[in-house]
Amino acid sequence: MKSLQVELGARSYPIYIGSDLLQQADLFSRHIDSRQVMVVSNETVAPLYLQKVLNSLAAKQVETIILPDGESFKTLSTTETIFDALIGKRFSRNATIIALGGGVVGDISGFAAACYQRGISFVQVPTSLLAQVDSSVGGKTGVNHPRGKNMIGAFHQPRCVIIDTTVLDTLADRELSAGMAEVIKYGLIRDAEFFLWLEENIAALMDRDPETTALAIERCCCNKADIVIEDERESGVRALLNLGHTFGHAIETGCGYGTYLHGEAVAIGICQAADLSRRLGWLDKPVCERITTLLTRAGLPVTPPTDLSVDQYLDLMAVDKKNIDGNLRLVLLKSIGQAVITADVNSTTLKQTLSEYGL
Amino acid sequence: MKSLQVELGARSYPIYIGSDLLQQADLFSRHIDSRQVMVVSNETVAPLYLQKVLNSLAAKQVETIILPDGESFKTLSTTETIFDALIGKRFSRNATIIALGGGVVGDISGFAAACYQRGISFVQVPTSLLAQVDSSVGGKTGVNHPRGKNMIGAFHQPRCVIIDTTVLDTLADRELSAGMAEVIKYGLIRDAEFFLWLEENIAALMDRDPETTALAIERCCCNKADIVIEDERESGVRALLNLGHTFGHAIETGCGYGTYLHGEAVAIGICQAADLSRRLGWLDKPVCERITTLLTRAGLPVTPPTDLSVDQYLDLMAVDKKNIDGNLRLVLLKSIGQAVITADVNSTTLKQTLSEYGL
Repeated sequence: MKSLQVELGARSYPIYIGSDLLQQADLFSRHIDSRQVMVVSNETVAPLYLQKVLNSLAAKQVETIILPDGESFKTLSTTETIFDALIGKRFSRNATIIALGGGVVGDISGFAAACYQRGISFVQVPTSLLAQVDSSVGGKTGVNHPRGKNMIGAFHQPRCVIIDTTVLDTLADRELSAGMAEVIKYGLIRDAEFFLWLEENIAALMDRDPETTALAIERCCCNKADIVIEDERESGVRALLNLGHTFGHAIETGCGYGTYLHGEAVAIGICQAADLSRRLGWLDKPVCERITTLLTRAGLPVTPPTDLSVDQYLDLMAVDKKNIDGNLRLVLLKSIGQAVITADVNSTTLKQTLSEYGL
Repeated sequence: MKSLQVELGARSYPIYIGSDLLQQADLFSRHIDSRQVMVVSNETVAPLYLQKVLNSLAAKQVETIILPDGESFKTLSTTETIFDALIGKRFSRNATIIALGGGVVGDISGFAAACYQRGISFVQVPTSLLAQVDSSVGGKTGVNHPRGKNMIGAFHQPRCVIIDTTVLDTLADRELSAGMAEVIKYGLIRDAEFFLWLEENIAALMDRDPETTALAIERCCCNKADIVIEDERESGVRALLNLGHTFGHAIETGCGYGTYLHGEAVAIGICQAADLSRRLGWLDKPVCERITTLLTRAGLPVTPPTDLSVDQYLDLMAVDKKNIDGNLRLVLLKSIGQAVITADVNSTTLKQTLSEYGL
């Protein structure tokens, strides 16, 4: 088992990465000092892994709530069902929530933990590749609004992140690919060496080679932890993690939550960001092609949906969280391994990318 | 104008207390650095004071949302209408919410500010006595759950608190009394000298003498600021501010939100806490009578509703936020000016207070 520390003063916590961690009761007991524990999972993950977690929580008052699976359920309304369960079971302010699932479960559970009685503890047990490499680390929690992704939420750090790589054995191929979009993202924004490594190892990763996968997860978590330590509440460098997300969120919202998996929309968004960077003279065409090639080898879509108009994109992108006083800001690429955030994109060039890329 | 500072490191902010502050545009501009401003108010307050605030916000992009008035609207659903308005107007993460109203408006608006895009700035402009002396200071925000008061919320400090004492001129008598419950609370929990002062000055306060009222507000804000500075997130002494609130919240929830004003329920709850303290041998009867007399002179109810059974009380109190692992904790009085929090109340004595006090 590897362990990384996210150093955030009083809010510091460890990330554990290894095989068969769900069965390690001491990991749970070390970070849960309350008697009351609510495990939040979903209909897909619970039948596979809930019992293992429950076995590791003996001697606690454990309750469970099983959510429907999918991005379309990442709503305030679903969060209310968690509040109802917590209050119904008389859960106190010192209770702990365990999020057992992918990014949706982690985001909702973390947000419920942030708001229940003005904040209770929670533990992330991510079961998708995407959650293991990205969303479970860093304390971003929240739900979607019908008009914008993750518009309602809180920064609320977990007590620990327990990444059991064994659970990826049962992950659907499509979900594995979706997670790979965020993996590739780290290479693009700040880790050129990792991008090269991914180009060499993508076949092994798609073949689910355990050692290669564990290495990739560890590298991503290191990158994520570094960024979160530097900028916990996204006043600067943390925004770079949003490469491809402004386009991607527009696609997710515009096409209806759940039509594209988050990682799929991000993959397309990364290609759009690369295309826009190329139009600005920052990337050349071969580099853009390396990016789309790697995403394609990871089983990801690289062309946008045909049914979103430029005006729809602009409308959806206007609510992006990175915007300031209503002015659009985008994460773009200067090179592989170097992302920048900029408000200086002229709208003609942006519209060219939105209307022409992928045709 | 008086000014107090709530020292909380990076989250420090001033409280301004004085007459005609709504018209002081520089107070607003000093603490609002965004172009986008959303003023949240309610149907009672907006016709009286919204225009004054808007006049002080010239040169900003100002939008307004007017909520229905009353505790029964302090819900997640009302909060959603604020999110809808913010997103509808394309408000960015650097926008500011101004809460113009009483405790309900302040609590909801602050919670919306805590959660919109994971946290935006907000300014408290309290217009009820209760909000001016208590709820606008300290960063407690939130909404009610059908089964418990303030069960969903966040700690989110305002950028400043602007207390315009002139607005109390239009406050309904019943609301004035309700605020006085929290005023008296400060005397009881930690400021015996202030309690004596209140016994001498309650008539002037009920006659709305401006100078006496301003002195009382300032004294309360000093007490509140001291406590919040010492214990921002209520891991200790801040819980003492909840004197009368465990009983009071049970009454508010049990009788239906809005049946009793919060301050009215707290007044009854203070009497119940005093009665229980007497049964435990901590207070003598004359002291309890001084407390009920002062509350009565403030126009407040001191006897509980007749339609809540002991079992209903216990059920409602079981979800109180001060409880640990499901065990009830209560704020009680050792003397006037000295409150304690205790889990050591035997249930027989508690039931005696719940069934016998006020009969």
